[in-house]
Amino acid sequence: MSRPVVDHTHAPDLKTWVEGANGHADFPVQNLPLGVFSPRGGDARIGVAIGDFILDVRAAFGAGLLPGQSAEALEARTLNTYMGLPASQRRALRHALSALLTEDANAAKVQPLLHPAADCTMHLPAQIGDYTDFYVGIHHAMNVGALFRPENPLLPNYKHVPIGYHGRASSIRVSGTPVVRPNGQTKAPTAEAPSFGPTKRLDYELEIGVWIGAGNELGQPIRIEDALNHVAGFCLLNDWSARDFQAWEYQPLGPFLAKNFMSTISPWVITIEAMAPFFVAQKARPQGDPQPLPYIWDEADQAGGALSVDLKVSITSEAMRKDGVAAMQLSEGPATNMYWTVAQIVTHHASNGCNLNPGDLLGSGTISAPERSGFGSLMEITRGGAEPVEIPGGVRTFAEDGDQIALSARATADGYVSIGFGPCEAIIKPALPLA
Amino acid sequence: MSRPVVDHTHAPDLKTWVEGANGHADFPVQNLPLGVFSPRGGDARIGVAIGDFILDVRAAFGAGLLPGQSAEALEARTLNTYMGLPASQRRALRHALSALLTEDANAAKVQPLLHPAADCTMHLPAQIGDYTDFYVGIHHAMNVGALFRPENPLLPNYKHVPIGYHGRASSIRVSGTPVVRPNGQTKAPTAEAPSFGPTKRLDYELEIGVWIGAGNELGQPIRIEDALNHVAGFCLLNDWSARDFQAWEYQPLGPFLAKNFMSTISPWVITIEAMAPFFVAQKARPQGDPQPLPYIWDEADQAGGALSVDLKVSITSEAMRKDGVAAMQLSEGPATNMYWTVAQIVTHHASNGCNLNPGDLLGSGTISAPERSGFGSLMEITRGGAEPVEIPGGVRTFAEDGDQIALSARATADGYVSIGFGPCEAIIKPALPLA
Repeated sequence: MSRPVVDHTHAPDLKTWVEGANGHADFPVQNLPLGVFSPRGGDARIGVAIGDFILDVRAAFGAGLLPGQSAEALEARTLNTYMGLPASQRRALRHALSALLTEDANAAKVQPLLHPAADCTMHLPAQIGDYTDFYVGIHHAMNVGALFRPENPLLPNYKHVPIGYHGRASSIRVSGTPVVRPNGQTKAPTAEAPSFGPTKRLDYELEIGVWIGAGNELGQPIRIEDALNHVAGFCLLNDWSARDFQAWEYQPLGPFLAKNFMSTISPWVITIEAMAPFFVAQKARPQGDPQPLPYIWDEADQAGGALSVDLKVSITSEAMRKDGVAAMQLSEGPATNMYWTVAQIVTHHASNGCNLNPGDLLGSGTISAPERSGFGSLMEITRGGAEPVEIPGGVRTFAEDGDQIALSARATADGYVSIGFGPCEAIIKPALPLA
Repeated sequence: MSRPVVDHTHAPDLKTWVEGANGHADFPVQNLPLGVFSPRGGDARIGVAIGDFILDVRAAFGAGLLPGQSAEALEARTLNTYMGLPASQRRALRHALSALLTEDANAAKVQPLLHPAADCTMHLPAQIGDYTDFYVGIHHAMNVGALFRPENPLLPNYKHVPIGYHGRASSIRVSGTPVVRPNGQTKAPTAEAPSFGPTKRLDYELEIGVWIGAGNELGQPIRIEDALNHVAGFCLLNDWSARDFQAWEYQPLGPFLAKNFMSTISPWVITIEAMAPFFVAQKARPQGDPQPLPYIWDEADQAGGALSVDLKVSITSEAMRKDGVAAMQLSEGPATNMYWTVAQIVTHHASNGCNLNPGDLLGSGTISAPERSGFGSLMEITRGGAEPVEIPGGVRTFAEDGDQIALSARATADGYVSIGFGPCEAIIKPALPLA
């Protein structure tokens, strides 16, 4: 297994000279996530988040502060080239950035290259060639399966095949971009004919995104022992869903317009190197479940290929924002509820020779806990709209115009400084009027 | 409705000075398809097919022979920028190319910019951002539906929703690229557990591809009356399928590894301008079928939005090639068996605000005729392998290693010179040995 190693950049006593960054909830110096940002009035460039600041990596490279690094990777407007670098080069960049931000001798040179994050605009970190969404949240699969197919919630293939499907790359947007309620076709089971209009069942899906690093050639599979060498990092992903469109369109070829109107991701790439301390044993496969086929089975992956990440969703309605009421938590649960590991989905995806490219995005699928307090979508929380959830000043079955949905993630491990994934949020705008 | 108009470039008596091109089966001067090619020893550039030659469009532009055209579009290594031009500019290019190739006064200047097609390498014509496959061949939907769901072949949504799903963009290759038989998971209905190995049911699918031209902004739908303004052209598409993988994996989210190991397209973009004479009335929707919702209904589109294109598939086994036996035709049928028009699928795709981009590719889905001689896949021809088809020196249920599958298409209309789509073929290579 090719899991990255814990090294001095993860040391809990490591401190940065950047003001306010030590003890920062998301971006202490143990994190060092990469992203693409524009400072006020500037063009898009690669940066690294440190506390409430962003270090301009392009400028640091230009100033000779990152010697030996790849100009092609660090002067680009996206992280695709960086993602495709060998793991050793990506690790070297992490070490160099860590040194710049922790050694007091560097402070004077590096300080002028910091921008307050609040003054910057974040962009998509990569040009996403292909986006694939998996379905590894077994409790979600059972919850949703029970609503769509009460007689048959978990299909017979689920525990053998990491189920996935191709999603829409063009409509992925970074946190902060509003989502417009989509129009579409629906047909209630009792209606005689379908109709066209705004979705009445707009939902979010809480997912972890996986950024593909080094790709594979068409026809060349990826061995499970090597799979994590093909991963560059992680993000949060909200796979917005129109449940009424989905129910009417999804047979026989899967979700289409129910999902492709927009997906929201967090802008920071939490590198796989940063995640090294947060890989833990796989827990979501109960004793007695069928053993997967050898091509997607690796004992070392089972022992240390799951993610120790705590996931949360919150909602703030327009009225709550107006009244200054804080966001209300809708759910919280661990990413260890993924039935298939990251290595398993990467290997399965390439097992038929399908070629992955740097900057491709894989979604985990909705990650739900077994209990309602950890359900990763409104569909599950409200049992298809039958059991509304109370929020300050109102109730929700599905999301309403003006609601802001915010996902968050925090990786934790005993003896290590926990790191956050940064924001993944969007406000819902009303549907366009029909022509 | 925004169908392109027939003009002097389609005149049946128009002749080119290019040797052997008048009366050429695929590429007479009425066609003028665009593609990306490398001449022997040269780099990739845009060209136009004329008879058995390719005119170097980049060189013609560089020599000042295409004044007023877009340098950004014509000097690029892909057709994406060209595809995104306004229809008026694309038409102007067609007019200019037609003049270069038909006026004798241009022959001396243009002749040196022609390359024998046999000496050139073809490339993908565009960087494909997203690839979407539809399912508009109603006879295919019924044939395959009957095999997968005998009790329920055509689902209730079929005649209301143009069913589609997202496919894999990274594994699309041009004609001539071999396809490697994929390994994957299968489970026979009678088997106790799944197994992993080479597909035993490798199939082709005969489809028309639609190249998206001008895109739409996220959140902004495309009116059906404007839909063809967002189409740049057409190609052939073979959506290779592993039927055994498909049967085991496709529930509940649709086909995935059964399809994404490779798709083959023809390299030439048959422009929508070239297709102007070949739009005909929609015939595949019988009287009495439900009327589609207004957003995907346009009387003018019904009257003239279907494609008069004859589609064929042939097979040549390795033994046939060795013995010098000509390809055997497996099927022939018209593209008017598409239940939904091109305008309807474009409009439906963007109806929820999903943004399309220049160079996106839409597949029609397999186009089958009602009778066996026009079935567009082996799955249908052999009824799931139950009724083998005889070929010279053997029989086939599904495709075997060494088989070459070739699709072809010809647009025809009374009073016009018919045009071909060029080759769309691939030879099947054996699966990689399992590790």
